[in-house]
Amino acid sequence: MSGTSVAIIGLGMMGRGIAGRLIDAGFDVTVYNRSRSAADELEQQGARVAATPAEAATPGGLVITMLAHDAALETVATGPDGFLEKLGSGGVHISMSTISPSLAVRLAALQSALGSAFVGAPVFGRPEAAAAGRLWIALSGDADAKARIQPVLALLSQGVFDLGITPEAAHVAKISGNFLIAAAVEALAEAFALVAKNGGSAEAFLGLLAQTIFACPIYQNYGRLILDRQFSPAGFKLALGAKDIGLVLANGRETETPLPFASLLNDRYLAALAKGRAELDWMAIALDVAADAGLANAPAS
Amino acid sequence: MSGTSVAIIGLGMMGRGIAGRLIDAGFDVTVYNRSRSAADELEQQGARVAATPAEAATPGGLVITMLAHDAALETVATGPDGFLEKLGSGGVHISMSTISPSLAVRLAALQSALGSAFVGAPVFGRPEAAAAGRLWIALSGDADAKARIQPVLALLSQGVFDLGITPEAAHVAKISGNFLIAAAVEALAEAFALVAKNGGSAEAFLGLLAQTIFACPIYQNYGRLILDRQFSPAGFKLALGAKDIGLVLANGRETETPLPFASLLNDRYLAALAKGRAELDWMAIALDVAADAGLANAPAS
Amino acid sequence: MSGTSVAIIGLGMMGRGIAGRLIDAGFDVTVYNRSRSAADELEQQGARVAATPAEAATPGGLVITMLAHDAALETVATGPDGFLEKLGSGGVHISMSTISPSLAVRLAALQSALGSAFVGAPVFGRPEAAAAGRLWIALSGDADAKARIQPVLALLSQGVFDLGITPEAAHVAKISGNFLIAAAVEALAEAFALVAKNGGSAEAFLGLLAQTIFACPIYQNYGRLILDRQFSPAGFKLALGAKDIGLVLANGRETETPLPFASLLNDRYLAALAKGRAELDWMAIALDVAADAGLANAPAS
Amino acid sequence: MSGTSVAIIGLGMMGRGIAGRLIDAGFDVTVYNRSRSAADELEQQGARVAATPAEAATPGGLVITMLAHDAALETVATGPDGFLEKLGSGGVHISMSTISPSLAVRLAALQSALGSAFVGAPVFGRPEAAAAGRLWIALSGDADAKARIQPVLALLSQGVFDLGITPEAAHVAKISGNFLIAAAVEALAEAFALVAKNGGSAEAFLGLLAQTIFACPIYQNYGRLILDRQFSPAGFKLALGAKDIGLVLANGRETETPLPFASLLNDRYLAALAKGRAELDWMAIALDVAADAGLANAPAS
Repeated sequence: MSGTSVAIIGLGMMGRGIAGRLIDAGFDVTVYNRSRSAADELEQQGARVAATPAEAATPGGLVITMLAHDAALETVATGPDGFLEKLGSGGVHISMSTISPSLAVRLAALQSALGSAFVGAPVFGRPEAAAAGRLWIALSGDADAKARIQPVLALLSQGVFDLGITPEAAHVAKISGNFLIAAAVEALAEAFALVAKNGGSAEAFLGLLAQTIFACPIYQNYGRLILDRQFSPAGFKLALGAKDIGLVLANGRETETPLPFASLLNDRYLAALAKGRAELDWMAIALDVAADAGLANAPAS
Repeated sequence: MSGTSVAIIGLGMMGRGIAGRLIDAGFDVTVYNRSRSAADELEQQGARVAATPAEAATPGGLVITMLAHDAALETVATGPDGFLEKLGSGGVHISMSTISPSLAVRLAALQSALGSAFVGAPVFGRPEAAAAGRLWIALSGDADAKARIQPVLALLSQGVFDLGITPEAAHVAKISGNFLIAAAVEALAEAFALVAKNGGSAEAFLGLLAQTIFACPIYQNYGRLILDRQFSPAGFKLALGAKDIGLVLANGRETETPLPFASLLNDRYLAALAKGRAELDWMAIALDVAADAGLANAPAS
Repeated sequence: MSGTSVAIIGLGMMGRGIAGRLIDAGFDVTVYNRSRSAADELEQQGARVAATPAEAATPGGLVITMLAHDAALETVATGPDGFLEKLGSGGVHISMSTISPSLAVRLAALQSALGSAFVGAPVFGRPEAAAAGRLWIALSGDADAKARIQPVLALLSQGVFDLGITPEAAHVAKISGNFLIAAAVEALAEAFALVAKNGGSAEAFLGLLAQTIFACPIYQNYGRLILDRQFSPAGFKLALGAKDIGLVLANGRETETPLPFASLLNDRYLAALAKGRAELDWMAIALDVAADAGLANAPAS
Repeated sequence: MSGTSVAIIGLGMMGRGIAGRLIDAGFDVTVYNRSRSAADELEQQGARVAATPAEAATPGGLVITMLAHDAALETVATGPDGFLEKLGSGGVHISMSTISPSLAVRLAALQSALGSAFVGAPVFGRPEAAAAGRLWIALSGDADAKARIQPVLALLSQGVFDLGITPEAAHVAKISGNFLIAAAVEALAEAFALVAKNGGSAEAFLGLLAQTIFACPIYQNYGRLILDRQFSPAGFKLALGAKDIGLVLANGRETETPLPFASLLNDRYLAALAKGRAELDWMAIALDVAADAGLANAPAS
């Protein structure tokens, strides 16, 4: 598939990692980002840089979007100089951002009218995983379109999980997965606080759990980072985590699904935002868990 | 260490599994249980059956306790015909039940006055793991006593985690670990409900998460059982799970540790008890998560 | 002020009560409602019936809106045949619906550009209070506009509380007040459940509290209705209560304000909606409080 | 009833207020307090001071207890030199403290065996209300005993509410009532935070609500004190409020009653204790509501 044209819209840490990997593999990559400077390095690596989202897209080609929130995706897709019309008939929009399921449904309907396909393909993994092609991808949408983009996904990931033919299924899985992560963070932080207030070692406690019944990346890696209060620089910003829990609750409201753990996490994130922690890692909700227990609680520098 | 005398007090599924394994390994095992019938099979396997806790203990020997709650342990230890006085100087009490850290502290002080040692050694693992010597053990207490009982623990477990020299540290870890499990169950159940209300497949969602960032026994096994509504017969009864979350909250109160997830779980367990689900598996709190979302919710038979 | 032209848009139970009272007082009333039939009775009482929101408004006159949610207000104000352009310079829009503070801000800005004034004037009180001129009104907005509409408000209410000159202050107060009511309902329902599970009389308990430290309408009237399970016909529909708690949480998100009680209420309302209780009175969240405690819980007929 | 012997055990602010009022009315009052100094002023007013609880009681007479918690009451009632045996046949124990319903049941059984009666008579009202005879009293227990103590209760209160013949009903009502108060405090604090974060006046908001649908002492007085951050000196100490919410949750556990608002309050109180606020007024949980919203939050001096 080397030589295929791919537009990549949104050049945060994730988007840059994805673009770099596709360039290295010989794809014909055009990038677009609201602030131009993020594209400089990729240009040197061989990417073309478009001045607008529309300019980035090739009719009937592939567009990958990797943006911070619903509004950003709506702007590049359907705003002035949005890419959807240009992408036109036969094109595939690979939606890799963490967005609301309802936006996925809305865009899929618009694209259907324009003759293109919307494929949900949000990812699990931090920027270094993106650059190394080690993401996990949740996939859903039109079967033909999914088949067509398979080589792109294979290059970026160590595993692709097909969740069906609706546009939103993959995005539901992504926000639900992020909810599970945040819930594990809160649970770990509470357990650490309890162990500490009993005079025990949270370190040894994590050693026990993360090698046995919770021997998996989230508990091992996040547990470690919480204990080390390693919240800056952020692997994933708290402001984005707060947004994702907001997406979970908004979806819960639309679908009439009570989600008490998610509600509690929402309040944790709002408190963290109100206290100025938007730029810390999203695990930094652990700071208030500790502070509420009266534990010494120096914010990460 | 074959030939060593060990008393095992409390012959629920876990206690019987432990006793059987020690008998098979050639230990000189005496058992005691409040209702005598639980001891019958072990007697045929070669155990001696004591009529009282005191009778079960050998002065200066080893006593393993595996009981359902604090009150049961207090009765066999310090009640009429309790084993503590008989165990006497030089003995070791291996406390494998899930009990409150404060009871561990209290018994350790009593034992110290009597010249014996209290070692906290609660376990993670279901009855079949006990019988197969595949438990995980959290350990804390006096260093000499811990060294002395090492062969017993090795026989029962695939891993022992030393959490220090206080009597309660292992019990704090155990109740905190059970809290982490219950929190994972609630989080999974909420995520499953959200996926289902969006028309997606909770099965496929679990497939994604449990093979990637949550690839560990709790998410894999418990996730499976929740999806299958496999709540009876119970691997671990809901009434016991409810008790353990109660221990977590009681300890949080004593140590002034707010635990909002645990508080929410406590209300889930009380609702399940109020609805008559004490005998189901403790994962059955997932029934109310689904019911609150209006999902068809046939109680496990 | 008799003879003054007033348009009333939105003829639910509240809107009809308001319109009837203004007609009786001699105002020159024009009404509009999406479904025409709601206007029939008022027409017989002397109201003119407009075919569109725009037709209802008099340039430079007064428009009262009393609608079910933000979207309905946006449609009649700025949709096709919306009233805002027609109202034009010098007009006053009296916003009596329970809407989001952010919509109040948005409409106020639009109206400012058109030369008219937005006044927030949401109300506390049930339909019979509207018809009897016994509402309580929260007021905010431009000082001159507030002075001009004083006779209208006086006719409808037993008290007007001025909360300042911003367009949203009154609407913030309204949704916060509804949150306080829902919180009192949940608290009462929990206390009733606890008393009942102890074998006591919730009736006698309410008698004590509602005559002493909680001797005020919410505890007296709502407490009574909860005890009587008088949830149908609804004085205020659960679907609307659910919407209002949603507005509270949405505002909490926008302003970065954690609101744990409101979060919990949100989950209660979503569960009630998922269980098909949208048409019951909004106090019917008490049904799940009782059911979770295992109390016999016949849904209101 | 002037001249009747009454023992008053427990001389905190409430107990002293009660004792003073009974002395002034001509009762023959004997007092006991663990630390003797609290009795000095009452001695000058004419009280006899007993050296032990037993010494304070008159066989067949009346004993009022007003203590800080279950343990204190158990000590003075059934500990060494406890008053229960001395009170003996025909005596009445008027239990005015806020204690667990289960202790009420236990003491009532003990007293029944000794021939005396246990009457639950916990109070609502601050110390100045006690001194002025303006308490509200929740009453339950044996009918004859209740009749006998009527003159005492009349002197202390502006209203007595009979909740039936069980020993615990009045104590259930008391802890449930305190739960309602704490819930109102949390709800008010959240609403105030939301109003403030919207740039509005919490003062004006309270003015609206506390004169209309929430026109009752709790919302008026507590709302005022929260706005003024008037948390010291404490009218009722946070440590005691924390204890009472603990009693509510403990009773919820015993009776299998989920109480989500109470659970949330429990975490608020534990956080406040962990942060060293035990001596502030129990309304000071409002400090964390504000701090979590990022609002300037000077702790009360």
